[in-house]
Amino acid sequence: MLFAVTMDVALPQDMESDLRADTLAREKAYSQDLQRAGEWVSIWRCVGQYSNLSIFDVRDNERLHEILWNLPLFPFMTIQVTPLAQHPSDIAAG
Amino acid sequence: MLFAVTMDVALPQDMESDLRADTLAREKAYSQDLQRAGEWVSIWRCVGQYSNLSIFDVRDNERLHEILWNLPLFPFMTIQVTPLAQHPSDIAAG
Amino acid sequence: MLFAVTMDVALPQDMESDLRADTLAREKAYSQDLQRAGEWVSIWRCVGQYSNLSIFDVRDNERLHEILWNLPLFPFMTIQVTPLAQHPSDIAAG
Amino acid sequence: MLFAVTMDVALPQDMESDLRADTLAREKAYSQDLQRAGEWVSIWRCVGQYSNLSIFDVRDNERLHEILWNLPLFPFMTIQVTPLAQHPSDIAAG
Amino acid sequence: MLFAVTMDVALPQDMESDLRADTLAREKAYSQDLQRAGEWVSIWRCVGQYSNLSIFDVRDNERLHEILWNLPLFPFMTIQVTPLAQHPSDIAAG
Amino acid sequence: MLFAVTMDVALPQDMESDLRADTLAREKAYSQDLQRAGEWVSIWRCVGQYSNLSIFDVRDNERLHEILWNLPLFPFMTIQVTPLAQHPSDIAAG
Amino acid sequence: MLFAVTMDVALPQDMESDLRADTLAREKAYSQDLQRAGEWVSIWRCVGQYSNLSIFDVRDNERLHEILWNLPLFPFMTIQVTPLAQHPSDIAAG
Amino acid sequence: MLFAVTMDVALPQDMESDLRADTLAREKAYSQDLQRAGEWVSIWRCVGQYSNLSIFDVRDNERLHEILWNLPLFPFMTIQVTPLAQHPSDIAAG
Amino acid sequence: MLFAVTMDVALPQDMESDLRADTLAREKAYSQDLQRAGEWVSIWRCVGQYSNLSIFDVRDNERLHEILWNLPLFPFMTIQVTPLAQHPSDIAAG
Amino acid sequence: MLFAVTMDVALPQDMESDLRADTLAREKAYSQDLQRAGEWVSIWRCVGQYSNLSIFDVRDNERLHEILWNLPLFPFMTIQVTPLAQHPSDIAAG
Repeated sequence: MLFAVTMDVALPQDMESDLRADTLAREKAYSQDLQRAGEWVSIWRCVGQYSNLSIFDVRDNERLHEILWNLPLFPFMTIQVTPLAQHPSDIAAG
Repeated sequence: MLFAVTMDVALPQDMESDLRADTLAREKAYSQDLQRAGEWVSIWRCVGQYSNLSIFDVRDNERLHEILWNLPLFPFMTIQVTPLAQHPSDIAAG
Repeated sequence: MLFAVTMDVALPQDMESDLRADTLAREKAYSQDLQRAGEWVSIWRCVGQYSNLSIFDVRDNERLHEILWNLPLFPFMTIQVTPLAQHPSDIAAG
Repeated sequence: MLFAVTMDVALPQDMESDLRADTLAREKAYSQDLQRAGEWVSIWRCVGQYSNLSIFDVRDNERLHEILWNLPLFPFMTIQVTPLAQHPSDIAAG
Repeated sequence: MLFAVTMDVALPQDMESDLRADTLAREKAYSQDLQRAGEWVSIWRCVGQYSNLSIFDVRDNERLHEILWNLPLFPFMTIQVTPLAQHPSDIAAG
Repeated sequence: MLFAVTMDVALPQDMESDLRADTLAREKAYSQDLQRAGEWVSIWRCVGQYSNLSIFDVRDNERLHEILWNLPLFPFMTIQVTPLAQHPSDIAAG
Repeated sequence: MLFAVTMDVALPQDMESDLRADTLAREKAYSQDLQRAGEWVSIWRCVGQYSNLSIFDVRDNERLHEILWNLPLFPFMTIQVTPLAQHPSDIAAG
Repeated sequence: MLFAVTMDVALPQDMESDLRADTLAREKAYSQDLQRAGEWVSIWRCVGQYSNLSIFDVRDNERLHEILWNLPLFPFMTIQVTPLAQHPSDIAAG
Repeated sequence: MLFAVTMDVALPQDMESDLRADTLAREKAYSQDLQRAGEWVSIWRCVGQYSNLSIFDVRDNERLHEILWNLPLFPFMTIQVTPLAQHPSDIAAG
Repeated sequence: MLFAVTMDVALPQDMESDLRADTLAREKAYSQDLQRAGEWVSIWRCVGQYSNLSIFDVRDNERLHEILWNLPLFPFMTIQVTPLAQHPSDIAAG
């Protein structure tokens, strides 16, 4: 089941640099694990923004929330979720 | 070069039904040609909306505008364009 | 899988009265069939608005889109979809 | 009398962890007491958000305000209240 | 139970003048009946706007919706409803 | 001359508790003096919000500004002012 | 008593040309009469907009509403009203 | 050349009181010098707001920016600039 | 004196095709005359929009308004005007 | 490939003055290097704002993101990106 998710990041300007580096490293590892597992299908940087647009393919709403809630950067993110369905013009629709 | 594009469609409620059917058929053919050519990479329906989220992979801004401007539904669409770049957490980034 | 959906209705002021009555009757029957089937769990009127707040319990995103897209009033509605998950404070969570 | 209420939570990033844990525990107990009493009818997590959508069934406006004002997380919440009425398509309307 | 309600009116510019006069006369009579009955407590014109701010004192949400839904101008109105409670600084609070 | 005023309060989360208590006490006294004087005609709590809706009856714009500017909570408020006039449907209009 | 008022004009694109010319002529005469009477103190065109920013000096709210409500272009305007008071830095404040 | 400018002030709540008093005194002197020089034509307080609406008559855009950028309160202001032109209904237009 | 101007075009969907072609031709000629005269410095299409971003270099506000007001597409445009000044980092600033 | 970019700057009010001066100096040098290289084509100050409007001419989206992400003021900026294409009325279009 597909969802488009945009994540805007706003780190506190006084965030301690070790904590910052550690949080970013954990975020990257967390994301890449889910990419390898096939649940985090795509991730793109939005040009000029500290934001990404991602596509998730998950079992259900519960699983999507579990993934997003546990993002190391979750407390610093504004997140927007759009449920997706197959488009009738999609050539993959057969 | 990648772009995320959302297209919200609002057909006039008094649109003549033949014109409507013809426009939708031309829109579908137009989209599928570009999908087969590899420029219109993905198209998803946004659940509960007469809208799609699409990913385009085009040569440059000029080409993206040419594609969007010539959509048969263009006069009836509100379009939002987001330029994308590779995300540093993308496992495809190597 | 649960979703909250708000539907705001704006009928054209010059809508022919028979068409209007027929569309509303079909909308009501459509909604009640889905309520009896257990997919349209709740529907409330928002006070002072030609709007409803509804809860759906459906198999997946595809099914939710199919239901909403086929609403007789769909061409006259502005729809907002919020995917829901179980809340940790819900006493039903055990 | 029914109301839909959305609550968006924004805890200060420097909130002391004991205070945080205590506030969240009190919030959960407070919510569950009202759920058991039948006034807080439903609570769902909005996917990807530190937010909930809740349905309240209360005596009147005064009681709803009393409940919301005394939420342990009230000082950290943005709250939106929508009064609800029975929908004419509700199969429970008889 | 008190509610603040704002009503913004937008009559179609091509509305037939007899219909317009009749609708406005029925709106005025409807409002004045409810004022005399004590449910429509106050009505003020917002300066420079085709809008009013009103205070209603009604039995419950159902009754407020019934009143608003049956306004002769309802199809031409944008309505905003704010439930009110007693303010702790109100000298009438005793 | 009547005005509707909404006041949304946002106290700093680290406000010292004595200062907070004192400011609130002064706000209440200030409001009640003006209520007794007949200038602050009504004050209601907006349900679920740290906000009030008030009606003022003052000599002129200067006097309204003087009252609002000197509210003990003014530095913590977002204020919206709507000038009111008599509504032609008001039964008090004669 | 001073007010700033912005008026945005949107004439229907199919407005009959005689009616249009007549309405604009009446608007101009109406405005100039009030300017000569000293109630419509200033009127400026907002650059690139079919809008004006005006300053009114009127007896009270009732009079301002009467003036605005009777503008020949009122049915085609979106109006915003800001009550003004003397600024403490105004050199005219003495 | 005329411009309408609105300035909304938001002083930090922990601003040291001497700095605050000094900044406000410098702002007042700065504004009054420009009023006397004829560049800052009008300044009004917006009722109930820590805001002003001002009219400037300056040589060009560069000069307006120079004036605004050097306001002692500039770092604490949200500023909106509207270029003005003579209105065809202005009786001063001859 | 420089201004950035964005123009969003919305032609009526039932606009007669000859009128449409004629209006667009006149708009193009009008724009190109001003480009050759050096007042309309730049014009770019915003990708995926029926919009342009333009830079004007004009004598004063009056002249900019005159240019925009007389655009053949003016009745169909939403226009936004931003006055510009030299940036201190501009290498042309010397 | 052309892009319009607006950058709104909000420096923390308690930013240490040496850090502030150093950051601004690095920002200026960074911008001027790119201007000399031909990638940062234009930069204008928006009048009355701590903002600029810039035109970039870059190889692709990746390069634009690289430039913006490495702005010394990036952590303090709100950035808006608009991809541009040649306008059919541009006299340079031949």
